[in-house]
Amino acid sequence: MHIQHSKLGLYFDCPTASTFNLDDWTDALEAMHQLELGSIANPTEERQVGHYWLRNPSLAPEGMAHVVRQSHQALTALDAMIQQRNFDTLLMVGIGGSALGPQLLVDALPSMTNSRRVMFLDNTDPDGFDHALRTIEPKQTLVAVVSKSGGTKETRNAMMEVQALYERHGVRFTDHAVALTVDGSQLDQCAIEEGWLSRLPLWNWVGGRTSVTGVVGLLPLMFLERDWVSFLEGAKCMDDWTRSLNVDNPALQMAHLWYTEGNGMGDRNMVVLPYKDALGLFGKYLQQLIMESVGKRLNRNGQTVHQGLTVYGNKGSTDQHAFVQQLRDGRHDFFTVLIGVLKDRRMATPKVFVEENVGAGEYLLGFLMGTRHALQDADRTVSTLVLENLNESTLGALVALFERTVGFYAERLNLNAYDQPGVEAGKRAASEMLDLRTRLFNGEDVSDADPLDVWMWTEHQRINTEQ
Amino acid sequence: MHIQHSKLGLYFDCPTASTFNLDDWTDALEAMHQLELGSIANPTEERQVGHYWLRNPSLAPEGMAHVVRQSHQALTALDAMIQQRNFDTLLMVGIGGSALGPQLLVDALPSMTNSRRVMFLDNTDPDGFDHALRTIEPKQTLVAVVSKSGGTKETRNAMMEVQALYERHGVRFTDHAVALTVDGSQLDQCAIEEGWLSRLPLWNWVGGRTSVTGVVGLLPLMFLERDWVSFLEGAKCMDDWTRSLNVDNPALQMAHLWYTEGNGMGDRNMVVLPYKDALGLFGKYLQQLIMESVGKRLNRNGQTVHQGLTVYGNKGSTDQHAFVQQLRDGRHDFFTVLIGVLKDRRMATPKVFVEENVGAGEYLLGFLMGTRHALQDADRTVSTLVLENLNESTLGALVALFERTVGFYAERLNLNAYDQPGVEAGKRAASEMLDLRTRLFNGEDVSDADPLDVWMWTEHQRINTEQ
Repeated sequence: MHIQHSKLGLYFDCPTASTFNLDDWTDALEAMHQLELGSIANPTEERQVGHYWLRNPSLAPEGMAHVVRQSHQALTALDAMIQQRNFDTLLMVGIGGSALGPQLLVDALPSMTNSRRVMFLDNTDPDGFDHALRTIEPKQTLVAVVSKSGGTKETRNAMMEVQALYERHGVRFTDHAVALTVDGSQLDQCAIEEGWLSRLPLWNWVGGRTSVTGVVGLLPLMFLERDWVSFLEGAKCMDDWTRSLNVDNPALQMAHLWYTEGNGMGDRNMVVLPYKDALGLFGKYLQQLIMESVGKRLNRNGQTVHQGLTVYGNKGSTDQHAFVQQLRDGRHDFFTVLIGVLKDRRMATPKVFVEENVGAGEYLLGFLMGTRHALQDADRTVSTLVLENLNESTLGALVALFERTVGFYAERLNLNAYDQPGVEAGKRAASEMLDLRTRLFNGEDVSDADPLDVWMWTEHQRINTEQ
Repeated sequence: MHIQHSKLGLYFDCPTASTFNLDDWTDALEAMHQLELGSIANPTEERQVGHYWLRNPSLAPEGMAHVVRQSHQALTALDAMIQQRNFDTLLMVGIGGSALGPQLLVDALPSMTNSRRVMFLDNTDPDGFDHALRTIEPKQTLVAVVSKSGGTKETRNAMMEVQALYERHGVRFTDHAVALTVDGSQLDQCAIEEGWLSRLPLWNWVGGRTSVTGVVGLLPLMFLERDWVSFLEGAKCMDDWTRSLNVDNPALQMAHLWYTEGNGMGDRNMVVLPYKDALGLFGKYLQQLIMESVGKRLNRNGQTVHQGLTVYGNKGSTDQHAFVQQLRDGRHDFFTVLIGVLKDRRMATPKVFVEENVGAGEYLLGFLMGTRHALQDADRTVSTLVLENLNESTLGALVALFERTVGFYAERLNLNAYDQPGVEAGKRAASEMLDLRTRLFNGEDVSDADPLDVWMWTEHQRINTEQ
């Protein structure tokens, strides 16, 4: 009936299983095998792709295995220091792959004691900084600056705002700062020169959007006293399960679902509906993981393909009171992945009966089932992932399941899932906009510029300088 | 160049303005005029549609004008009681239209003093209850139960969990509870019988997804000591602006954008990207407002149309590091609404220079402009809304702009934007699933049931009863 992994406590019911054909996926599986062996799977950036090594270093080429193990030791050493120093807040400064993964983990696996918290600066919004920083006590805060290159402007700006806060409070920033970055980067050099508290490694062979099983995800888990080793083991367990050419491989079935529903070109949106508040960010996390990986103009042969798979969704049953009306009655432009969690409560709160023999948890599961049937009855495709419990192990498994699905799907479409060439255009254009601002305020001729841009800079200046 | 309202400080640059034709919208404008006069604009539920009266009672039929004004007086009276009682937390219990609007407001307009907070229970997830409730101090918490009918199961379940918490703490729930509901509803009767602290009115002529300018939105604003009167005035100001048949009417231009880009059938997604952390929930809010309103199977003539307009988006520039890769390079299945805010900081924090003469705010605006150009260069449609500042007035205006756009757009497509017939199917099916569970555990024959459902109930029972 459904695919299952009893040890993990994870089950997958996939309606397209009946049309699944192993032969279609042989090449993708072989390519993923080569990727795990260390092939240059990201040719445009001439990089290996090593996120699967993060949870199983023994698979990795020797140098990589060594540094992954070292990073785990460094994390343990930092843990001892955190306990000694009595930090109660971890402030993570990073954007995109350096934020969405840890945000998901912190939401899904909160501190059991409530004595520590993790906060994020994930943008370059001064107002957002003010809002987050006003609850920060600099002395008790560990600041983790996350950037592979150290050159990401949003992250640099946020870091400088935090440094200014420490200065205003007369607290030394470097005593509270840890750099998560690639060895030798601008940020790394700065952390060494200034003598930051600690450094944890990122590598060019792990992309930001697949870095959550690296120190980017492990640090906040450790800080919240969650079992980061189990998180890695869950991911490894899923990797082991999804490596084989088998109809019971859930990543192949999931990739087949995407392929079939989207006619090989992503022409249906994927709606992700976890029936669990703690997974409320999972759709947003998948948006990045999937859309940045497969949203590509060219395939690996250089042919223009304009691929992509649009993902959205928040949580059930809340979304039933928002957009499920459209899913059921409106445009048939989507397929659905429901995610259920069977264990109602992770805390030892007494069960409250809302009706005879029925609690809120029975309703939550009942609504999942109800939505499944309501959508199926309207001929919408619904697949269902069920976890026995939401914990470190199953969350690691979920992450690994979708990572490998992306890999299989991209191989089938002959896409490089590991670069992001389209992101540069926006950065370049933003840089030109800052140059335009300089020219404007230097009194230079800007008649070549877009009038809206000139107007926005002029008004921005007026509004932020008036009393 | 762009449409503007100087008093509001709101500007709209719409690339489809050049193809806009007033004649296409004459009927929609007239229909909205009739709606505001009190026509039965929601015929399937035989209801008037009165959310525009909430901010301008003088437009409303006499009885409605009176009760709207009364609700404002009741709110002021409750304010006095809140101050007297020293509540520091408002816990809002509600789902869908009773949650997304207030959540948006609380995020966008946080307390200036940080001395009060608003929390939400917006689901029937026991684990979610535990997570939220563990930080609640019952004596200092005002609990607002929001449900028009009082029959929404998620809300009832959440309320019962809160009541159980009060009981465990030995604090009387009714002394801390306010009911936001329709006069005479099940919830209203309960509040009267039990002598709850207060009752605030909802009405059947205001739908949940357009209730944010009613007490559902005003209560949390008031609790956070924000200016709820300005919020109403901003909405009224937008209503006045968007009521006329004029090319400078931004709601008509926005409706034309949706119509043109989606070929009158919503066949492109709308990506909403506010460049402001405080507007991070705006996309989610619009998902409900728009998709529940126009995601319909039948038009008003009973013809099958399967309409809808899919909405997603979080915030810039964060999303540039997530899915903008796909927007720029991948599937051309969307159009974009960028939202910029010119005022960098609402608090009096000293400006931090990240480069000579440049702060984080210049980067934020530069990234908005950069994304606009990067997408335009790839022939993607980008419209841009600019606010001088994000405050009560402009947020009210934004809400009213999209409410009226939905109205115009639905009229043009001949849709009833005010019912949600597709939501019932999921509720009915959920109820059948709870019946199945009862049959299963009573040992009755369930061989007619879907094996996955039986399996889920069986496992759910096992997992939640094992030690």
